[in-house]
Amino acid sequence: MSETKKDAIATQEEELSWFDPLATEGLRVYGFAWFDRDHRYMRFPAASDELVRKVSTNVANLSGHSAGGQVHFRTDSDTVAIMAEIAAPSAMPHMTIIGQGGFDCYAGCDYQDLKFYTTTTFPISARAYQYRFFTGIPGEKLIVINFPLYNKVESVKIGLKPGALLKKPEELPQPGRIVVYGTSITQGGCASRPGLCYTNILSRKLGIEFINLGFSGSAFGEPEIAELVAAVDGARMFILDYEANAGSNGRLYLTLEDFIKIIRRRYPDVPIAVVSRIRCVFAELNPETAGKMRRELKEFQMKTVDSFREKGDKAIYFIDGATLFPDDYHEFTVDSNHPNDIGFYWMAAGLEKEIRKIINI
Amino acid sequence: MSETKKDAIATQEEELSWFDPLATEGLRVYGFAWFDRDHRYMRFPAASDELVRKVSTNVANLSGHSAGGQVHFRTDSDTVAIMAEIAAPSAMPHMTIIGQGGFDCYAGCDYQDLKFYTTTTFPISARAYQYRFFTGIPGEKLIVINFPLYNKVESVKIGLKPGALLKKPEELPQPGRIVVYGTSITQGGCASRPGLCYTNILSRKLGIEFINLGFSGSAFGEPEIAELVAAVDGARMFILDYEANAGSNGRLYLTLEDFIKIIRRRYPDVPIAVVSRIRCVFAELNPETAGKMRRELKEFQMKTVDSFREKGDKAIYFIDGATLFPDDYHEFTVDSNHPNDIGFYWMAAGLEKEIRKIINI
Repeated sequence: MSETKKDAIATQEEELSWFDPLATEGLRVYGFAWFDRDHRYMRFPAASDELVRKVSTNVANLSGHSAGGQVHFRTDSDTVAIMAEIAAPSAMPHMTIIGQGGFDCYAGCDYQDLKFYTTTTFPISARAYQYRFFTGIPGEKLIVINFPLYNKVESVKIGLKPGALLKKPEELPQPGRIVVYGTSITQGGCASRPGLCYTNILSRKLGIEFINLGFSGSAFGEPEIAELVAAVDGARMFILDYEANAGSNGRLYLTLEDFIKIIRRRYPDVPIAVVSRIRCVFAELNPETAGKMRRELKEFQMKTVDSFREKGDKAIYFIDGATLFPDDYHEFTVDSNHPNDIGFYWMAAGLEKEIRKIINI
Repeated sequence: MSETKKDAIATQEEELSWFDPLATEGLRVYGFAWFDRDHRYMRFPAASDELVRKVSTNVANLSGHSAGGQVHFRTDSDTVAIMAEIAAPSAMPHMTIIGQGGFDCYAGCDYQDLKFYTTTTFPISARAYQYRFFTGIPGEKLIVINFPLYNKVESVKIGLKPGALLKKPEELPQPGRIVVYGTSITQGGCASRPGLCYTNILSRKLGIEFINLGFSGSAFGEPEIAELVAAVDGARMFILDYEANAGSNGRLYLTLEDFIKIIRRRYPDVPIAVVSRIRCVFAELNPETAGKMRRELKEFQMKTVDSFREKGDKAIYFIDGATLFPDDYHEFTVDSNHPNDIGFYWMAAGLEKEIRKIINI
């Protein structure tokens, strides 16, 4: 790059005004259930840090991953940029570096009109980066920026043209929150960019806040974690999608009933959907071993739901994860376990239908 | 990892027999048009190395990327592994490291039954790696392994259980080759794994060999390159999909007619489809600038095709790339330019229909 061009870019960047979501009224942060109290991009409350670390070091670390975090605002700036610092360069080979540690940007007139614009790009070894999502798009617009799925955001600032309008967005079309507890899949592995994690797709499709409590490889349904899931304020529905971590080791059998009971103590009537695992080619190739285990786990989840319903809890549902992918199901993962973007697209489409029926939106 | 576990893995790997596609009768390599003569994983012939480098250093380098390469074989080994060396660690942030530098594996009874099994995984900085695609899957099967999309394969070996059957696969369901000339999108940016590059999806769906001549950022339609595209033996159809590189700089206007004429000299009757660019949100947001340019480029491609047809060439077709994505088109890229897996899935679905009509399969 020539010096002149470098200078030009530097000057352009200097010309932007930078706003920190931690300190800016107009930037509204979604997806972190305790953000208003704790002012940090963490998925569990500060008051429980010690407890969570005792229960599971992995969950404690992963609760710092910003999956499901979003910042929303309205602006008439014709340029929107971002400046971010993440905890460490991302390192997983089966997910893009920008899906792990980047942000993506949607824009439109309002929540019904959001369109994907673009994604941060930066050297794969970068721990800090700056990126212009767009420039030269006039008019007032609603902006939704999705946070990294598999990295911790140490700091983030939004860059706008100096003097541009910056104000809080309108309320989301739907009040309340849908809280999803689950695995690496819930956390967004392996979406190509943050907006394609299934909870983020659903938040756009349904116009409601999602609280993503997916903890890669670590969703074992511990009662202390269940208490924190139940502690999310304003829940309108819960989704429990943790067979992929707690199935083969037997923990699902040990924890599911108690998990539901813990939610019920805080939320007696809020719908709970238990979602079984998506299809996996190796389960189908080994019908007598992995396949058998899958069938039994699915039956167990169905029966658990049935037993609550029989006892009068009519707000509990079972969703068969195996039905979410169409015939070519084997194509829709990156490694036979983690959905690729097609997989998330189908998961979101199937879950959207079920959620609409369940909470009637 | 404990020493014991490390040793166990080492012992397991030692127990496999390793086969090099360059020197093994039973391993059939597809996707490199000059493989039988040159015995290398390059997309252009050795005899033209010097010429290509004179025309375009980028194309010369990218012709070493193994996009579209595949190795097919039949085996009854219950384990299939791979050992590969690539030119350098992959470095793009918006495509997975395994999409850039890894292999993925499909298996089934025959070409109609292929299912995606899994993908190599390795540290992102690795230049050499070894991976077991699966183990414990009994019976004879057809295996199709897709090569890296954005890296150069220095060497690759297939690992099987010692003494296992290894033989050439049956012929592909369809004879001949479909030759695709194009951009980074053609080359597979940004599929999450090699098998989801649109030419690889189509090779499975249609049961025919594809020759992927996508050259990221460098598809300028030079006549020397057109000569090499036309030099592919056994072509049953050509697809020219290079607007995304040659559109905004005007080169498409300068080269398309000659490109078609060059193909026609070698293949007077083989169908040629000109495909315009997929939809892009920024073209739609800027109808008077980028949008206008897109409309003009599309019209130019349509008119060029029409003018050949009017002169009696009935084997030339125009496919409107903008129709390949459904309504949510803006979701189907990773950066507003490069399809993500959903984008490739839709591209392949749309092109499959058109190709079936055109070559009647």
